[in-house]
Amino acid sequence: MITISTIRELREALSVYKREGKTIGFVPTMGYLHEGHLSLVQRAKGETDVVVMSIFVNPLQFGPNEDFSVYPRDLARDQELAQNEGVDYLFAPSVEEMYPRPMLTNVSVQNVTEALCGLSRPGHFDGVATVVTKLFNIVGADKAFFGQKDAQQVAVIEQMVYDLQMPVQIVPCPIYREVDGLAMSSRNVFMSEEERSQALILSKSLRHAEEVIANQQRDVAVLINEVRYLIQSQPLADIEYVEVKRYPDMSDIELLKTGDRILFALAVKFGRTRLIDNVILTVVD
Amino acid sequence: MITISTIRELREALSVYKREGKTIGFVPTMGYLHEGHLSLVQRAKGETDVVVMSIFVNPLQFGPNEDFSVYPRDLARDQELAQNEGVDYLFAPSVEEMYPRPMLTNVSVQNVTEALCGLSRPGHFDGVATVVTKLFNIVGADKAFFGQKDAQQVAVIEQMVYDLQMPVQIVPCPIYREVDGLAMSSRNVFMSEEERSQALILSKSLRHAEEVIANQQRDVAVLINEVRYLIQSQPLADIEYVEVKRYPDMSDIELLKTGDRILFALAVKFGRTRLIDNVILTVVD
Repeated sequence: MITISTIRELREALSVYKREGKTIGFVPTMGYLHEGHLSLVQRAKGETDVVVMSIFVNPLQFGPNEDFSVYPRDLARDQELAQNEGVDYLFAPSVEEMYPRPMLTNVSVQNVTEALCGLSRPGHFDGVATVVTKLFNIVGADKAFFGQKDAQQVAVIEQMVYDLQMPVQIVPCPIYREVDGLAMSSRNVFMSEEERSQALILSKSLRHAEEVIANQQRDVAVLINEVRYLIQSQPLADIEYVEVKRYPDMSDIELLKTGDRILFALAVKFGRTRLIDNVILTVVD
Repeated sequence: MITISTIRELREALSVYKREGKTIGFVPTMGYLHEGHLSLVQRAKGETDVVVMSIFVNPLQFGPNEDFSVYPRDLARDQELAQNEGVDYLFAPSVEEMYPRPMLTNVSVQNVTEALCGLSRPGHFDGVATVVTKLFNIVGADKAFFGQKDAQQVAVIEQMVYDLQMPVQIVPCPIYREVDGLAMSSRNVFMSEEERSQALILSKSLRHAEEVIANQQRDVAVLINEVRYLIQSQPLADIEYVEVKRYPDMSDIELLKTGDRILFALAVKFGRTRLIDNVILTVVD
């Protein structure tokens, strides 16, 4: 594996493969890798010839009171994990390399961003759409792999790629969970043992919601209330949102109908750690 | 020359050349071609292997009270002109092909857009940046050729390409003028003989400004007043703006200094026809 920190060098390295007709798979991350990231690498290795992973904690997508400065970083550890997993090129640019001057160009997506994390994190998805556009332009990948834990992010990027006809295929990949059900996240390391234990309520409450929907509950307000009630059983849980939206357009829904594709999404704080989790499902009879 | 109206067909046609390592030159236009457009084609032919011209009157960049519906269109005439000039592929998509669903993604550029046409045409440069991004993604050109008559547009696109690291080189090309000095524009056909005759004051007043600057006038307010006075000598002229800005960042300037690179820009209506013209110059001793 080769680690590269400049745009110019990465382009030069990849241009060789492109001339040979090789396909490029891209796994954009903010680093502090976990099994979820590595599962994206496996998927990329199965579908493309050359796998590029980026590690870049993007300041544009953090609000002024968010955790940009303390977001966990450990490049040496990430390099080892990425290399062992078979990443070919690790692109780890500095903030100065990505934003040498104040960024004057912004990519924004309407509708899909106007709910869930888009409400609680104003400007977040503009930052995501802008940096992903820039990374796509730098890497020139054939396919890009994103985890469904950030389901709204996937929806935003798919909308953007469709609207702007970006020449890349987006591959959404399943959420990767610890054996006890906790969705993998770089932020999990911030939690105390007690917080982590109580955080299991997120995946549990989503599984409960799936069961209740399977048992014909169709009223979204009832579903949301049941899940809120379950989460509130954990004293350290501070709910930011519990929402059901049509997927991927994120429009509102009140009564489920057979065939509806929905996103059941949560954002809950445990102490200072904000966690998200979700399930995407199609309503069946 | 092959005329193509769908994104898919254009991509298929161009992928052959890309695999062969041929370079692609792109001339985006809104059609109703004139010598200015054709000079861009000549430049593209000299610098790239395959020349793609697009003709698309982009609704996103017209305001509600602007001339989208009456903007001149004549595809048969344009096809003949483009073919005679040596265009290889003419991409002429419908509005439905470019925007099959409501466009939810927007590309916007700050600062550079907050003056001149950006002030008088709110949303215009968002529409330009968004459609140019989409066209770049569709064509995948190595170089794109733009006329300096739209100097601010060139500055916006260069800023966007820089900020987002778009893999294309922007080639600004000189303004092409009629023998009497009128800058070529598809909108010139809208003018009556009398309007057209009075519109010559635009290029004349810019030449006058250049002379006065060469004669050491350094006070921008004085320069603007002189040019306004000249333009107002034509009874049909209705000035929208006469401005001097640093180029290409479009920041304000009050006193010229040696080495300053400036844009002297005008927008003036004659009857219902809005014309723009400009000169970019470097202040010398």
